[in-house]
Amino acid sequence: MDQQDLLAFEKFAEYITLEASRIILDAARNDLQVETKSDHTPVTLADRRAEENLRRLIEKEFPEHGIVGEEFGETRPGAEFRWILDPIDGTRALVAGVPQYTVLVALEHQHDSLVGVIHNPGLDRTMIASRGNGTRLNGQPTRVSQTRDIADATVLCSSYSGLMKAHPEQCTRLLSTCRFAPGWGDGFGYMLVAQGCADIMLDWGWNVWDAAPLKVCIEEAGGCFTDWNGTPTIYGNSGLAANPALHRQALEILGDAKS
Amino acid sequence: MDQQDLLAFEKFAEYITLEASRIILDAARNDLQVETKSDHTPVTLADRRAEENLRRLIEKEFPEHGIVGEEFGETRPGAEFRWILDPIDGTRALVAGVPQYTVLVALEHQHDSLVGVIHNPGLDRTMIASRGNGTRLNGQPTRVSQTRDIADATVLCSSYSGLMKAHPEQCTRLLSTCRFAPGWGDGFGYMLVAQGCADIMLDWGWNVWDAAPLKVCIEEAGGCFTDWNGTPTIYGNSGLAANPALHRQALEILGDAKS
Repeated sequence: MDQQDLLAFEKFAEYITLEASRIILDAARNDLQVETKSDHTPVTLADRRAEENLRRLIEKEFPEHGIVGEEFGETRPGAEFRWILDPIDGTRALVAGVPQYTVLVALEHQHDSLVGVIHNPGLDRTMIASRGNGTRLNGQPTRVSQTRDIADATVLCSSYSGLMKAHPEQCTRLLSTCRFAPGWGDGFGYMLVAQGCADIMLDWGWNVWDAAPLKVCIEEAGGCFTDWNGTPTIYGNSGLAANPALHRQALEILGDAKS
Repeated sequence: MDQQDLLAFEKFAEYITLEASRIILDAARNDLQVETKSDHTPVTLADRRAEENLRRLIEKEFPEHGIVGEEFGETRPGAEFRWILDPIDGTRALVAGVPQYTVLVALEHQHDSLVGVIHNPGLDRTMIASRGNGTRLNGQPTRVSQTRDIADATVLCSSYSGLMKAHPEQCTRLLSTCRFAPGWGDGFGYMLVAQGCADIMLDWGWNVWDAAPLKVCIEEAGGCFTDWNGTPTIYGNSGLAANPALHRQALEILGDAKS
């Protein structure tokens, strides 16, 4: 397969991804219809509709290709080319109003991804790559960082709680070695708690300008905002926000860090 | 002070916050001019310009009020009313292109926040609260979640690495107790790595549709994408993406979770 063929596949992959994106944004603006799967992860009607549409467009253009997707399983196993679909990766983020969910589309050949699209509907960003053609974000070539020492690194992860449950020792070592492992944090995280989209938010080692508006926003939304001693103050060196039941439980866990 | 006075303060706080937001969005569209402070955190020209403008508008309207802000210290200490300003909370997010940074403005009286505004320029969301007037997001009243058990909770944090360094035991207990502690993750996180805006991304316990487009996007951007065994595959039960130097170091830390 030459580079021109790959670019043609890229173009098709981008087209079907943007069609899926339209369906998702439309659902997000109207009604997401969230259900919870047996593994406690959410799924929306948009997940299913977007995957149905991706499959329909692929079947029409490449009836001999295989398809596997998160919501509807596999068709034509053993086909030489296979499309691999995740209509919404990060459905939890979509549901919480955090625009970090993506549509993932790949074309696979010989057990490896040949073409890949990562599209972010909420921020209108599309990353596309194919073998030998480089990676582009909205048309501009991108490269990974040049950071060389893990002590200077920013470490990302889909969920730190899952990592801590599955691999506690490695998680502890990695998080205590790197410089920065961000969450859905800062003032934005307290907004999510005051909206009921997230449950607990915590911080430490901060200043009064980090805390001042958060306390009144959390309290007026029915929550508790204190430092890790349980004192309701914007002058603590730490912060903890949650509804009253969870605030008590989190305070017990954090309590022996009082000093 | 009656509720009407508070609502008038709210209105003014919202006005100056949206003016700061305009300055920040304008800088984000043009040139952020990022510098690194001595504590390794970034600061931009927009941080300074937004705080200057907040101060100017407050001085004009309430010349007798005190002001304290992250970038320019304190004026009129001991004043009865004091404005507390963080022009950009989450500057790292702004710099990485993650729209979770906020403008934080509070009016303080008797050592507590009386009025609070948390504004999110990138998503055009404004949360406002004042004592007794409730919390509203873009005009709609909000309440905290009703989750009652920490095992069902979503836990947020500005940075899990800082928490792990400062309070490793509490961090371990909290993360292994709750259901979900999200980072800047999913496909979006791999986009950040392929863009050089973040250094390392990791996952485990996933499916081929979570991984397929990520591998080609990371590799074509000059990075390494493998499972935690170091095998370059989209079929591993785990994923690790980084530039070659950091990928080696992270693999050493994660390596004994191979099984």
